[in-house]
Amino acid sequence: MTDKLIIFDTTLRDGEQSPGASMTRDEKLRIARQLERLRVDVIEAGFAASSNGDFEAVRAIAQAVRESTVCSLARANDRDISRAAEALRPAARSRIHTFIATSELHMEKKLRMTREQVLEQARLAVRFARNLCDDIEFSPEDGYRSDPEFLCQVIETVIAEGATTINIPDTVGYAIPELYGHFIRMLRERVPNSDKAVWSVHCHNDLGMAVANSLAGVKIGGARQIECTINGLGERAGNCSLEEVVMAVKTRRDHFGLDVGIDTHQIVPASRMVSQTTGFVVQPNKAIVGANAFAHASGIHQDGVLKARDTYEIMRAEDVGWTANKIVLGKLSGRNAFKQRLQELGIEMASEAEVNAAFARFKDLADRKSEIFDEDIIALVGDESVTAVQEHYRLLSLAQRSETGERPHATIAFAAGDVEYRVESEGNGPVDATLKAIESKVCSGAEMVLYSVNAITSGSTESQGEVTVRLQHSGRIVNGVGSDPDIVVASAKAYLAALSKLQSNAERVPAQS
Amino acid sequence: MTDKLIIFDTTLRDGEQSPGASMTRDEKLRIARQLERLRVDVIEAGFAASSNGDFEAVRAIAQAVRESTVCSLARANDRDISRAAEALRPAARSRIHTFIATSELHMEKKLRMTREQVLEQARLAVRFARNLCDDIEFSPEDGYRSDPEFLCQVIETVIAEGATTINIPDTVGYAIPELYGHFIRMLRERVPNSDKAVWSVHCHNDLGMAVANSLAGVKIGGARQIECTINGLGERAGNCSLEEVVMAVKTRRDHFGLDVGIDTHQIVPASRMVSQTTGFVVQPNKAIVGANAFAHASGIHQDGVLKARDTYEIMRAEDVGWTANKIVLGKLSGRNAFKQRLQELGIEMASEAEVNAAFARFKDLADRKSEIFDEDIIALVGDESVTAVQEHYRLLSLAQRSETGERPHATIAFAAGDVEYRVESEGNGPVDATLKAIESKVCSGAEMVLYSVNAITSGSTESQGEVTVRLQHSGRIVNGVGSDPDIVVASAKAYLAALSKLQSNAERVPAQS
Repeated sequence: MTDKLIIFDTTLRDGEQSPGASMTRDEKLRIARQLERLRVDVIEAGFAASSNGDFEAVRAIAQAVRESTVCSLARANDRDISRAAEALRPAARSRIHTFIATSELHMEKKLRMTREQVLEQARLAVRFARNLCDDIEFSPEDGYRSDPEFLCQVIETVIAEGATTINIPDTVGYAIPELYGHFIRMLRERVPNSDKAVWSVHCHNDLGMAVANSLAGVKIGGARQIECTINGLGERAGNCSLEEVVMAVKTRRDHFGLDVGIDTHQIVPASRMVSQTTGFVVQPNKAIVGANAFAHASGIHQDGVLKARDTYEIMRAEDVGWTANKIVLGKLSGRNAFKQRLQELGIEMASEAEVNAAFARFKDLADRKSEIFDEDIIALVGDESVTAVQEHYRLLSLAQRSETGERPHATIAFAAGDVEYRVESEGNGPVDATLKAIESKVCSGAEMVLYSVNAITSGSTESQGEVTVRLQHSGRIVNGVGSDPDIVVASAKAYLAALSKLQSNAERVPAQS
Repeated sequence: MTDKLIIFDTTLRDGEQSPGASMTRDEKLRIARQLERLRVDVIEAGFAASSNGDFEAVRAIAQAVRESTVCSLARANDRDISRAAEALRPAARSRIHTFIATSELHMEKKLRMTREQVLEQARLAVRFARNLCDDIEFSPEDGYRSDPEFLCQVIETVIAEGATTINIPDTVGYAIPELYGHFIRMLRERVPNSDKAVWSVHCHNDLGMAVANSLAGVKIGGARQIECTINGLGERAGNCSLEEVVMAVKTRRDHFGLDVGIDTHQIVPASRMVSQTTGFVVQPNKAIVGANAFAHASGIHQDGVLKARDTYEIMRAEDVGWTANKIVLGKLSGRNAFKQRLQELGIEMASEAEVNAAFARFKDLADRKSEIFDEDIIALVGDESVTAVQEHYRLLSLAQRSETGERPHATIAFAAGDVEYRVESEGNGPVDATLKAIESKVCSGAEMVLYSVNAITSGSTESQGEVTVRLQHSGRIVNGVGSDPDIVVASAKAYLAALSKLQSNAERVPAQS
């Protein structure tokens, strides 16, 4: 058995399935590039057959990424698999990941299929896929709750048809480390051709044990691939968190004895990018990437740390990419300095025109904010790429005021496509007044289910506010993110961005987790 | 061995040690009452010897709580233990929790003591404590990294002196479930008098495995107490999360076969209270208590859930206290309705005068916000109790405006003790202008290390904003929380609250984790 552990990142597929975490093609592309810098072995880029948007995103990532294998999910049918293969065609290395549920509950209640039908469909799907691609992963959905006898039969069949990776999902987050580890081991022992495939684990965090379950699948079960996401993003309580599982394997190499190819210095930048893009905050006490993960406040601890760092620290903050905020650019910085910093941050712009547009925005920001940090640049470029590509609603200008004892008031001008509007409203607060003014014209009828603000950088009251607005309408949920030194302006941008997404997002077929 | 699992909550001690999570006496008291409603077996209320404030908080909780055992931490010396006993005197049931480090690293680098000295100090401390209290817990700090031979010697000694609970901390979050479980089992097998004490686990989440480690300590090791915190609050990546570990034991009763006394319906209210009090957000993909923990967005899942709920759900949201937002009160609600709702929410006011003050605030809010939710009432009462007790700086009035192309401007009137000030300033945004105006008079020199806003309720743009401001000054970190329908007003309140805490917080000795 090899001592290399394959890291399979599904932030862009299972992670994106979180209500509110849907991303545009360009956002996904930017994250995929960061995942490549992080040196993940496999990037699950999406579910090509689910929508034209997802197809385009998978294809764009397949074109851009050269080092990591690019993967698309596909249900176990010819159409899904063909779409996946087509989207993956430009990839240097590609994988098709096909799945079908194997638990009694899912087969009976969801698929309404018999065991024989499921077995046959799995067989035909893998056979079909193997003709299009050499690297085929198969997942029996809800595998951990499936009858072992039947599950072994399905796995033996798909390996015989050419599946190269067998992934056992704990779809509902029900597993416990030792049980899950022995379940994987049992399968590997009972399936006669088990040595012809790499075994993989895919755990959900509903009971808070996704990381431990994944590692038990590796240590006890002999799996050599872990499926995970940045920040543990994913449906419900999310997936196994990449940063935690990778740092556990690295920090406890004495126990696991496995190599991972991840460049851990890219972990915190990846975490920030995913958080800023989706608007999903990372709580301060989140392991590895939370703001407090490496902080020591108590006197005893500080004393201890001063005397010997390893009394309380088992990892080094700088090894996972924590750095002090640095002022990188200012009002007088020129276009070349700006472009160079973009390159250092690993941000690639599609054209010189896009660089120019971002630089204009940078100058505008530098006029209003004296210290420009890396985070500001990332936010700015994020705004830019979204706006350039697809934003239907755009902020033109905003004036607002509030005063104790009076109703807050806002006047806002915005564009909807080519048409410009000027509206005003009162509200409970300046943000409420601003959003009410917009809504008075747009009449989206959307319900706001989340509103949050975080400062993009810390250490100064001059931070930009980054506002996330989550809207729900007709069963769809979208996030809009906007940043500006003026929190009311940032709120207006975020709201308009969310409205744009609501308008543009086509319906699509989502996937298993 | 009993099949009852003791839940020991240390939100108010280890949780409060997180940088920025420090709480006032009244805040702690409110949370302690919620922990009692949650039916935790033991509430670690603080570290009485660390400061007069903590002493007062432990004593107030010992007075108020009748059902749960109330515990205070104490270093292994007579003074700490005496202070703990004194603070706990009013308690119906009390416990003293004393500790000393036993790992070579901690003894050498931090304590600068020999093994013999540590053993003797542990022996004398437990002997002294046992004369003051029948219920004594002993923790060998950094126990998991201690030499087993020496650790067994220490444990045997303190049990012989009367320690009734032996807690084995994984202080730095280094453990892995099977290793930790077998470590606990090994200790229990080697210590001759191990059956005279209840064994306890205390795990940190630095590698994301605190819950799994705790459960392995129980299942493999035979521990019967778990130390944990609401939301997994705690230093660095935090502690084992109460809600996750409790729901794992309940959901997988088939595996653990243990009873827990927790009223799980109180979990979400407890989570919200701790989050609102400390300003530590709960990320959406947090297990059990995250906003997305029970959400299903993908079409396949929704379809599956409609067909049979248990295809994707292993727990019921309502069992852990999730309820739809309910409009509970409005502008026309009277004092009796308000008071009754307070009682239903389990909020006890110290006096009729306090009820009156809260009701006045409620009427003021209802004038500006048509729908009043439970969360609004909790926030309002939170404001009230903090303000009533100790706030030095208070907002009087605020006027602000911003307009595209002009510098945002704010004018604010506030009181500092008995003196009133009126100041104004420009800034990058209206919040920046407001805080700059305050700072121009207060001159605190504090650095703002965090600024975040969350809507208190969802479902409407009329939500109140809840602003958290974290200030750092001379090595101390405080959080201020303020809520208002106007986000700029909420920011001013939060900033003034943080400044008040900076001024009032006495220095104190913090504790181990």
